Amino acid sequence: MKRTGFATWPCSIARSVDLLGDWWTPLVLREAFLGVRRFDDMQRSLGIGRNVLTQRLKRLVDEGLLDRVRYQEKPDRYEYVLTEQGRDFYPVLAAMAAWGDRWLSGDEGPPVIFHHQPCDHDMTAKVVCSECGEEIKVRDVRVRTADGTPMSGVRSGSPGRSAGGS
Amino acid sequence: MKRTGFATWPCSIARSVDLLGDWWTPLVLREAFLGVRRFDDMQRSLGIGRNVLTQRLKRLVDEGLLDRVRYQEKPDRYEYVLTEQGRDFYPVLAAMAAWGDRWLSGDEGPPVIFHHQPCDHDMTAKVVCSECGEEIKVRDVRVRTADGTPMSGVRSGSPGRSAGGS
Repeated sequence: MKRTGFATWPCSIARSVDLLGDWWTPLVLREAFLGVRRFDDMQRSLGIGRNVLTQRLKRLVDEGLLDRVRYQEKPDRYEYVLTEQGRDFYPVLAAMAAWGDRWLSGDEGPPVIFHHQPCDHDMTAKVVCSECGEEIKVRDVRVRTADGTPMSGVRSGSPGRSAGGS
Repeated sequence: MKRTGFATWPCSIARSVDLLGDWWTPLVLREAFLGVRRFDDMQRSLGIGRNVLTQRLKRLVDEGLLDRVRYQEKPDRYEYVLTEQGRDFYPVLAAMAAWGDRWLSGDEGPPVIFHHQPCDHDMTAKVVCSECGEEIKVRDVRVRTADGTPMSGVRSGSPGRSAGGS
């Protein structure tokens, strides 16, 4: 998609969207989360064009989600290793997978099972409030800009996106 | 971006990606979550082209995330209302916003504050295990396909994406 300057919006969703660039990027990250580190393995697994993969990996390195690390000399070879910022995106994809499992799986059920090692249970991701631990529902959340302005949906006549944060 | 057939992958992330189509779609959903229901309001708020917005709204209606509801006759006018499936995507965007708040906010801090009405606290979204309630870290999760095959990252020589679930 075109770059549309989401990076400057007062909205962490828009900024994340801008950083990720397009939908290949979460799938490249998924490979990294599965432990795939090498260009050829990612390319084969995703069936992605080499030039597209090169661009997406460069963006992820530039933005700090992956490190490019040399693992061999003569010839030099590199692999892509998740940074702390990159690993921290995993919960977002886990939440997306849980939604897809609920709504897009059809009769055959979820295609992939997640197992949580610390508690030794199969699990799904739940998104909860940091303060009370209850699951977040859209009807329970109110948002305001950093300066305290409530953000409501009724913005008829609003001149622009200035209230459109996340 | 091009449609690349992610819908058929054995992966709920890829299926969600395919459904959403491109990154405008989460931003259209964000408007819906903020309570915006009308085409002109969304268009103004997002600064999105009318044809692009029309396509994205149609896709979201076709896929079951929005209902198109007539609110006026002669002339007929419609608004877009979140379905249960659509509302259920909110936690994914909340998780994405929390990540963006942590990593993309800079010195001025998060641009938008979330308030959880039931517990009456400002909050951030946390993604936790459905079974033990602990925050999900990538190193703690093992994934397997529905038939029990472990999915590891080391897939040199893998012929394709068959192991590439989510």
